[in-house]
Amino acid sequence: MLTKKKEGKQDLDQLLSNAACCSQPSAIREICKLINRPGMRSLAGGWPDPNVFPGKEIAAIAKGLLEMNAGVVLQYGTTEGLLELRAQLTDWAREKEFIQCAQDDILITHGSAQAMDLACRILLDPGDVVLVELPTYFGGVGAIRSCGAEAVGVKLDQHGLDPDDLEVQLKQLNKQRRRVKGVYVIPNFQNPTGATLSLERRKRLLALADQYHFIILEDDPYSDLRFEGEKIPSLRALDQSERVIHMRSFSKIFTPGMRLGWVTAKTDFIRKMVVAKQFVDCATNTLSQYILLEFIRGGRLAERIIGNNKHYRAKRDFMLSQMEKHFPKAATWNRPQGGFFIFVHLPEHLNADQLLLEAIERNVAFVAGSSFFINGQGRNTLRLSYSQASPSEIEAAIAEIGLLIKKKLT
Amino acid sequence: MLTKKKEGKQDLDQLLSNAACCSQPSAIREICKLINRPGMRSLAGGWPDPNVFPGKEIAAIAKGLLEMNAGVVLQYGTTEGLLELRAQLTDWAREKEFIQCAQDDILITHGSAQAMDLACRILLDPGDVVLVELPTYFGGVGAIRSCGAEAVGVKLDQHGLDPDDLEVQLKQLNKQRRRVKGVYVIPNFQNPTGATLSLERRKRLLALADQYHFIILEDDPYSDLRFEGEKIPSLRALDQSERVIHMRSFSKIFTPGMRLGWVTAKTDFIRKMVVAKQFVDCATNTLSQYILLEFIRGGRLAERIIGNNKHYRAKRDFMLSQMEKHFPKAATWNRPQGGFFIFVHLPEHLNADQLLLEAIERNVAFVAGSSFFINGQGRNTLRLSYSQASPSEIEAAIAEIGLLIKKKLT
Repeated sequence: MLTKKKEGKQDLDQLLSNAACCSQPSAIREICKLINRPGMRSLAGGWPDPNVFPGKEIAAIAKGLLEMNAGVVLQYGTTEGLLELRAQLTDWAREKEFIQCAQDDILITHGSAQAMDLACRILLDPGDVVLVELPTYFGGVGAIRSCGAEAVGVKLDQHGLDPDDLEVQLKQLNKQRRRVKGVYVIPNFQNPTGATLSLERRKRLLALADQYHFIILEDDPYSDLRFEGEKIPSLRALDQSERVIHMRSFSKIFTPGMRLGWVTAKTDFIRKMVVAKQFVDCATNTLSQYILLEFIRGGRLAERIIGNNKHYRAKRDFMLSQMEKHFPKAATWNRPQGGFFIFVHLPEHLNADQLLLEAIERNVAFVAGSSFFINGQGRNTLRLSYSQASPSEIEAAIAEIGLLIKKKLT
Repeated sequence: MLTKKKEGKQDLDQLLSNAACCSQPSAIREICKLINRPGMRSLAGGWPDPNVFPGKEIAAIAKGLLEMNAGVVLQYGTTEGLLELRAQLTDWAREKEFIQCAQDDILITHGSAQAMDLACRILLDPGDVVLVELPTYFGGVGAIRSCGAEAVGVKLDQHGLDPDDLEVQLKQLNKQRRRVKGVYVIPNFQNPTGATLSLERRKRLLALADQYHFIILEDDPYSDLRFEGEKIPSLRALDQSERVIHMRSFSKIFTPGMRLGWVTAKTDFIRKMVVAKQFVDCATNTLSQYILLEFIRGGRLAERIIGNNKHYRAKRDFMLSQMEKHFPKAATWNRPQGGFFIFVHLPEHLNADQLLLEAIERNVAFVAGSSFFINGQGRNTLRLSYSQASPSEIEAAIAEIGLLIKKKLT
């Protein structure tokens, strides 16, 4: 019973689905193994700073819930998510986002990643096209591809997705009779570039969605992480024809380990996503939802967001100051108004993939920008994250990266 | 910004995927809305009894973890799941299940439902066939169908899936050149029938899997809920050719609200499932995993299982005694050795769907057996669950159902 034949291995691989045969772990994952070495100064992950996790508050909330009401907070919940939490989120959407939505227009998910997965499932068939930013978050692209759909890239600059290029792509795909189902966009403090889509471009994107009849997949985990400048209404808030599926995360403003996100969209879409979720994981973690509910009540989450943003703003400013100090003039980068990321362009002939390998040898890590381009571009770019590293790690890492770049330039 | 046009609704539906267009919420879900009425005596849900949830122990564990180590237990984890938890589970598998598996052969999931979803994703393409028990859990069928695969039924009796009928189906599908990728089976205290697959049949099923070259999807949430009789080795333990994907749940033996399950399979399959999970929800809830880890350590989970089974055994015995007392001779049912379910056969001409509507009027609920048959059979069957209802609810509900059946018979 305890021995296993090893024959038949290839045989079994014949039984895999097309999606599984094609699937590859992301390049970042492979690098992560190196990055987790002890002593590594990492600017790689987009993880929040554990120093701002409200551990003690959560401990007190959890204790109260579990001692008073274990039978409820440890039981299965409904697939849609906790009714009281969805009620809080309709208020949040109305007051903070100018989005009118009812409880039935909201689904609680295991992070915004799950919202994206469910949205793709209800929208995409093999062969469909979704347009994505160049560069963009590989998780979104992965969800699109796992439905057998194709991701096609659209240019992006410091004001976000370029609607002119979008229109060019749409026309071209139309001619090729490809079915464009959606545009996947990260409008605020984009991952990896930190860019924010301007109001004008948001309106233009919505107009194009009406004209070319597609859905907008608005992936918006960072909008509450604004340190300065004025909040721009979400695509969902501006949407007049219910074409926007707005995906939100509690990972960056509360905690990622509790795996909570939410999505608002037109009722029919939410209902379809709920049915899909029934067979995906039945329901979202009940205890996490109750803890979050208590944390939102009394304005605690809103308060926490203000505090966190001061913290992250200081880290951004510190990293920018270190970059000014250590990076050569030939490198350029953005100054994001929020979020976790700074995106660096090196001179064309420099290769950031190679730079990363050399950095890792010196116990410094970042993510090579090419990981975010679906078309093989961006070899001369890198993403630096200030979210998780300590100031001393940021200082040491930026100095090392600066040295390595300078060495390449000479 | 706050008004919405309601035109274009049908237009947007054109953008839905084939899977979303075909998807329907389960009949049970619709009934659930009625069942949740206050005062309902429900034998419908397969939910565990909240009275056995270890709320205080979990509160103490959570407090310790959150006060001492919030930065870790609230942070993202790896997609595979917590390393220490997987280490505990390899021990559990070896000592309690006679399964030799390494940490890399284990994936922690958001419940066993997610394990099934991921297994289907890595195996199934549209048009593939998976054979399922008649009747079976609709969640499994839903996961199969959401990949565009077809579920085809195989007869089941008190000893579980009928291998003779399985072989007939396999031959027939072979002739039709249909690609049978797997057999989905709930071998222990099956949902809904409570039947357990005999050792002989397990061996026969594995032999057929080798001969006809398919995967066995072993859905096994109830095996630790054995009240009497001898444990039969799992298909995974008996498997000589790594064809079994063994899906386990902590919902029934720990708590469902923390959404934890695990799956063991050959390393390659697990790796493919991990890649799929990256784009499904990134990782499983970290806090839940750490709480469970502490709960397993020191043998607490094993102890708890023994205590719970005494509790559920008494409930089963009580329900059986009430059925003896109140049900007419024309009704027959099984005596499950574990799990949560008793399955009742009424005379052919009686309709349990109709019976359910009448029961609900009297504030009594169960699940009509037809919900579990993919081929429209089982109109004269019903599933009764003793897991969640209190003894007085069980007593009242069984008496009412008995009365209703008798009325139909006269």
